[in-house]
Parts: sequence; C-alpha cells; structure tokens
Amino acid sequence: MVLDAPSVQRLVEAFRRLPGIGKRTAERLALHVLTAPADEAVLLSESVKEARAAITTCSRCGNLTDINPCAICSDDRRDAKTLCIVERPAGAMAIEKGGTYKGRYHVLHGVLNPLEGIGPSELRLDRLYKRIQDEGVREVIVATNATAEGEATAMYLSGQLDGDDVKVTRIAHGVPMGGGLEFADDATLTHALQGRRSV
Amino acid sequence: MVLDAPSVQRLVEAFRRLPGIGKRTAERLALHVLTAPADEAVLLSESVKEARAAITTCSRCGNLTDINPCAICSDDRRDAKTLCIVERPAGAMAIEKGGTYKGRYHVLHGVLNPLEGIGPSELRLDRLYKRIQDEGVREVIVATNATAEGEATAMYLSGQLDGDDVKVTRIAHGVPMGGGLEFADDATLTHALQGRRSV
Repeated sequence: MVLDAPSVQRLVEAFRRLPGIGKRTAERLALHVLTAPADEAVLLSESVKEARAAITTCSRCGNLTDINPCAICSDDRRDAKTLCIVERPAGAMAIEKGGTYKGRYHVLHGVLNPLEGIGPSELRLDRLYKRIQDEGVREVIVATNATAEGEATAMYLSGQLDGDDVKVTRIAHGVPMGGGLEFADDATLTHALQGRRSV
Repeated sequence: MVLDAPSVQRLVEAFRRLPGIGKRTAERLALHVLTAPADEAVLLSESVKEARAAITTCSRCGNLTDINPCAICSDDRRDAKTLCIVERPAGAMAIEKGGTYKGRYHVLHGVLNPLEGIGPSELRLDRLYKRIQDEGVREVIVATNATAEGEATAMYLSGQLDGDDVKVTRIAHGVPMGGGLEFADDATLTHALQGRRSV
C-alpha cells in the first residue's frame, strides 16, 4: 500500500506533528497532497519554506514579524505606557483581532514551569524589566493563559513589578460573552463569581 | 500583524486547500509552522516534495504506488479474476485496511458526471474493459461511493460488463457494524431493509 512507502510515511509524520492532527487525518491529508494538482503541492512545500525565511521575531517584543522592529513596536500611535504580556504570538494575535487594545505587547515564548526547568532566565525576564524601565511603561497587563503555570507567572510578575511606578493587572476570567451559564465549567464559574463587579 | 505578511498569507492559503481545513485552523497551523523548531518546518516542506516525486499511479490499476506496476498488481497471490472498482486511491486503501479482500483493484479517478462533462472516455473505461479481457476477470465488484454519481456509474458498468463471462456486483450498503439503528439516516435504513438477507 502506498501509505507504507517511506516517502509517504515521512509526509504523514510531518502532518501528524501539526496541532490537532491525528494519524487518520494525517493520512487523509497526505493522500490529498499526492492526488491534488501539482501546483497545490508546490504551493504547500514552497510557502512553508518562504514563510519561515521571511518571518522572524521582533527584537523588542518577541512577536512574530516580517519587519524588525515589528509594526506594533514601531507604530507611534500605540500607547507605549501599556504593555500586554502573552505566552505566545497566537495570544497577541487574538487580542489584536479584538481590535480594542491600543498598547504594545511582550511575548514570553513560554511560562514559568519549574518542573520543566523554565525559570525567569529561560523566559529572559531581564529583557522585559529593562524594556519596562527604558520605555516608561506604567501598566503591565498579564494575559498569560488561565493554567496553573500561567497564573503562577502572573503572580511572579506582579511580585517583581507591581509598585508605585508600575501597576500590574490581570485580564478578567469569567463566563464568555454570549455563553450560557450551563456551558461554563466549575473553575470558570468560580472565577466569574469571585470577579463580580457592581453594575 | 504577522498574518498579514504576504508569505504568511500564502502559507495560510496552502493549508486552506487541504480537505477539512478552514480559515481559523489554517491560521493556527501556519502559526505553528512559524514557531515550531526549524527541522519540523523543513520536514513538512521537503516531505511534500519528496512524496510527490516518489509516488506515481500504477499503469495497470491506477492506484497510487512507489513501484510500477504496484505491489498489488504484481502480487501473484492476489486473485486476478476479481476486480474491485473504486473512485479514488483512498477507497482502495480503505478496503486494503479491512484485510479480507484478496482480489485486485481498478481506480477510476472519478465517477460518471454528465453535468461536469465526465463521461466514459474521461474515466478511460476502455482501459478497464481491455484489462478485464486481457486478465480474464470473472467478477467486477463496483465499490464506487453511495452517491447519485457513484450509483449511476455502477449501473452503467453493470450494463456494459454484466454477461456470461463477467459478473458485476455492488458492495452492500446498510447500517454500519456496531452502529445503532437510531444513528442511521433514512436512505441508509431504506437500503438496509431492501438489502435484507435470510439468516
């Protein structure tokens, strides 16, 4: 069977490494690539190579960009006094899509995780501290994920940074807009109740 | 935003052309490719190219293969008198995974579809007829999909081929094994009842 051919097994393996792609889906994608018009396969192969070559991380904020510093860091209309800290470029992109945030970003490329040996130096937090000082940041919004590690990282940053000059805040966690209470899990509901505000 | 960079847009477009991948998933896959270790991106890019170069269609049965004729066509232990007709290589692979079929295959690479201008000559059915004669095929099992076009193709082939020398059969359609009646759609249940057999 063609799926046993070494070149096809490598292709299936390449697809399986993508997030959310299991063995059966990877096999289906591989078959599609083998039977699709040649230009479709060329587009996939070449665009991966080209995008990797064209995209780098911004030397200031760590976000993915095709220019350095990135468009957000070099946009004077963005509020330099507000810094939103995210784990991954995908987090910054999600907030950008929202369209209301006007500050800048700092991408940690990870979270504190002592069990996996990721401490403040692995996240290069000294660069973050220096940036906050150099750019006169007044508010740091910690938007790390709502996981144990994300929460711990938020606590740590608050301990390090919160003071007279800099205010450290955390994004709100609660019931998603448009979501019914019955679909929210216990932890989300607990957060939603704890974070209640007067209306 | 990095998703607006031309190279990344091409990458997202390449992923979107894959079956079952929408815009959001394509963006997620593109971000993964941009942030993954370099060797993972190289594996994806190169394996697509290599697999396309290594895999061809069998000159005899039309299935995907890395040798020509394919391993099934050149395996003397396979029953040459039985030919299973499928629309796509994926169909032959699905039956092979079942592990019980011992005959050979013929891949049409399509089905009769007058509205899209696909007739007997587009499917190169003359090659199929010649093969049936040359190889002394006695049974043709039509395993085209259970769509209107697949059924029409099965009827057409039966009209062309069924006779004293060759028996044309159709795979059974009915309730999947392990599936409850309540999950089957109306058309499947109708087929299941029509195709009932004595036990």
